[in-house]
Amino acid sequence: MSGINRKDLLDITSLSADEILLICDSAKYFKEVFTRSIKKIPVLRGKSVCCLFFEPSTRTRLSFELAAKRLSADFINVTVSSSSVVKGESLIDTMRTLEAMNADFVIMRHQVSLSTEFLARNTSASVINAGDGNHAHPTQALLDSYSLIEKRGSLKGMHIGIVGDIKHSRVARSDIEAFQKLGAKVTLCGPPTLLPDEFKSYGVDMTYDFDDLLPKLDAVNMLRIQKERQKGSHFPSIREYHERFAMTEKRLKNCSKDIIVMHPGPMNRGVEIDDFVADSPNAIINEQVTNGIAVRMAVFYLLMGGKPLESLGSE
Amino acid sequence: MSGINRKDLLDITSLSADEILLICDSAKYFKEVFTRSIKKIPVLRGKSVCCLFFEPSTRTRLSFELAAKRLSADFINVTVSSSSVVKGESLIDTMRTLEAMNADFVIMRHQVSLSTEFLARNTSASVINAGDGNHAHPTQALLDSYSLIEKRGSLKGMHIGIVGDIKHSRVARSDIEAFQKLGAKVTLCGPPTLLPDEFKSYGVDMTYDFDDLLPKLDAVNMLRIQKERQKGSHFPSIREYHERFAMTEKRLKNCSKDIIVMHPGPMNRGVEIDDFVADSPNAIINEQVTNGIAVRMAVFYLLMGGKPLESLGSE
Amino acid sequence: MSGINRKDLLDITSLSADEILLICDSAKYFKEVFTRSIKKIPVLRGKSVCCLFFEPSTRTRLSFELAAKRLSADFINVTVSSSSVVKGESLIDTMRTLEAMNADFVIMRHQVSLSTEFLARNTSASVINAGDGNHAHPTQALLDSYSLIEKRGSLKGMHIGIVGDIKHSRVARSDIEAFQKLGAKVTLCGPPTLLPDEFKSYGVDMTYDFDDLLPKLDAVNMLRIQKERQKGSHFPSIREYHERFAMTEKRLKNCSKDIIVMHPGPMNRGVEIDDFVADSPNAIINEQVTNGIAVRMAVFYLLMGGKPLESLGSE
Repeated sequence: MSGINRKDLLDITSLSADEILLICDSAKYFKEVFTRSIKKIPVLRGKSVCCLFFEPSTRTRLSFELAAKRLSADFINVTVSSSSVVKGESLIDTMRTLEAMNADFVIMRHQVSLSTEFLARNTSASVINAGDGNHAHPTQALLDSYSLIEKRGSLKGMHIGIVGDIKHSRVARSDIEAFQKLGAKVTLCGPPTLLPDEFKSYGVDMTYDFDDLLPKLDAVNMLRIQKERQKGSHFPSIREYHERFAMTEKRLKNCSKDIIVMHPGPMNRGVEIDDFVADSPNAIINEQVTNGIAVRMAVFYLLMGGKPLESLGSE
Repeated sequence: MSGINRKDLLDITSLSADEILLICDSAKYFKEVFTRSIKKIPVLRGKSVCCLFFEPSTRTRLSFELAAKRLSADFINVTVSSSSVVKGESLIDTMRTLEAMNADFVIMRHQVSLSTEFLARNTSASVINAGDGNHAHPTQALLDSYSLIEKRGSLKGMHIGIVGDIKHSRVARSDIEAFQKLGAKVTLCGPPTLLPDEFKSYGVDMTYDFDDLLPKLDAVNMLRIQKERQKGSHFPSIREYHERFAMTEKRLKNCSKDIIVMHPGPMNRGVEIDDFVADSPNAIINEQVTNGIAVRMAVFYLLMGGKPLESLGSE
Repeated sequence: MSGINRKDLLDITSLSADEILLICDSAKYFKEVFTRSIKKIPVLRGKSVCCLFFEPSTRTRLSFELAAKRLSADFINVTVSSSSVVKGESLIDTMRTLEAMNADFVIMRHQVSLSTEFLARNTSASVINAGDGNHAHPTQALLDSYSLIEKRGSLKGMHIGIVGDIKHSRVARSDIEAFQKLGAKVTLCGPPTLLPDEFKSYGVDMTYDFDDLLPKLDAVNMLRIQKERQKGSHFPSIREYHERFAMTEKRLKNCSKDIIVMHPGPMNRGVEIDDFVADSPNAIINEQVTNGIAVRMAVFYLLMGGKPLESLGSE
């Protein structure tokens, strides 16, 4: 394989297992770069990276910003008021404006599923999906995959649980696809109202019984309970949710001793995860943050046409 | 001519035709720079550019930010809450603070006409007016002029229409001055309430009949209808406005075949301009965005004392 | 002395007089750097500086941003909505996220006293306190000290007044400590409700009579009246405050001819200080702004383990 040969990163669906592994291999290299003393390399020197977020986010934006800056790019933030209704037409015009400004990359987050795909077709800039509606969040799935590879060497044969509000989670959708492509078995778990039948089409197992599932898992991804995404009355009380689906000290003790606990952050401590677990050696939540930057550096590099890495000079 | 020999760019009034042409010539050079693969040159390395906007703007701020960064400047955003009342005294103190911080350039947008001139007199930093009240928006007029030169070689003898809310438009005022200085004939067009008699002093023609005017024009600048600027009852309904003054498919077909259609952006598609026109080969709206960055790079360069360009090294 | 040998700068209390003087000496060097034409040196190249402000601030944030950028750091702004309640736990998680992102420095401002100390203990990043509640604002006290040294050579034997809302002022607390450590005598002055007895423990003099105090002073620091900090009914009317405690033309004429007038900015002209004084040669308010950047560059340099400076190469 000579690269990933595409303009955009919009989802996991369109990536092959080999491409996911190439991104992870490259991320390993970039992680070495920025955990050195001098964190900067000139891969994107003179390139412009524009962050266009229609939903608020500190963590993901920051990760892309650091990744771009450590590659020496010019980074531009475009914050779009969440209150202003953005129509399809003006969205295209915004995109065309960024293209006319010669932005090389547009990192986009939008509340509407497939909006990034729609835009990617209408611009020559490289578009990276940083989360579109409930549809996909590919760089999160790539960093989750990389984090598991870093711990276990490979996902082949692993059994991974994804727990929480599956219905509204773009992280879950992208994780399922990435983990399965890399050879893992995935089981979804959550309250019945948040675990719709449509997910069966992914070929995953599904269960409402977290306590039954947990001892069988090699890794578990505890999704953030996003109150702002709950619509209607799908959601039980926080107390009831914690009772049945939180990763607690007691539950951790029923797990495989070396179970890996992941969380996409930011955590609601005491809701979906308790302090004892979040601060235990099983949790790799901080590593996920570090790896997120490395994976995003790798994505920039490969979308620019970068080849598998032997060595890259430091500035 | 050896340069533009001034500290500030506050309006078009104070620029000679030769100076406008020098800026456009320099912009041509800088456009070549950033449409190359490596877009960065060290013209402003170690210089600080501070953006002080008292009115919201994404597009103009972004254009200045990219221009500054592509010249290797440090770019600093100072966002000033539009709700906080800023008094004359504290405005001067803000400016003095930026000067004490050794900002080399202050890009300022303010809702009060002549506020940038007032401040420029009270600071040693270079001040660039990014729009002050209804008064002036010189870099917009420069990029409009450059875009026309790029298409036609010269504005001499061109007949250019400016259409819309002339009364409240700083773009119109600066465009009129720039286009006339470069030898074009300018005709203004809009509803009577938005086309006040005071504009006769510019020596322009004025008409309320867009359909009569259009076939005579070489270029037309469709101003954005800014609902937020409409005060009182000057403004007809959107439907009536569109009927009489919008650039529609039908109207385009009555134009000279190679008429140039400009718009300062962002467009209200379906209000002052229709999709058919905005997306037609006659429209140069995206080129205007690209050229805006080039023109602003040229302005930075020349205000710093830069000489007419033979060649500049790339970093 | 070989450096300041610490990870964090949280207060003045923990600095020795020699360490304060080392920071001021280094600041002198950095001020020379950025008042040259090329203001940038590679001291922090490849390092990430993250600004985490839980209270709004333009001036202090800007000063840190310019200091970091002039040292070639990557600067990242994290704005935290003042309305969102940030609990202790999530504050630690925010900090851990920044640490996992390999931020080398976190500049933090928070409305809760000692919050920066709490966080510094929980991260390996260098934490610089940019103001925590009423507790401390060490870089302000360092720049005030440096500004006085620049004017007088030394603070030994100086008599310095600090005037205004002492009770709520973190600047006052840090200034008192710094000025005393450098050998100055400090007298506090303000309305009785804003000058609590607890300050006697600092070993300062206190008075309610500004007119009696002024002629004895070598320097006076006029604190900003921050209406947003006034709680309850401690505060007299603006008219009454001005009458008794403002630095007016009349009062300046009763001062020592070369009294130094300082203000941490931004000024409320006509409240705690009048135009005549603010714009007089006695005022060093703009120099304080310039010196603030130099002092913050020195703090970055020394916290990174920098040694006393002979010479540093320019980029």
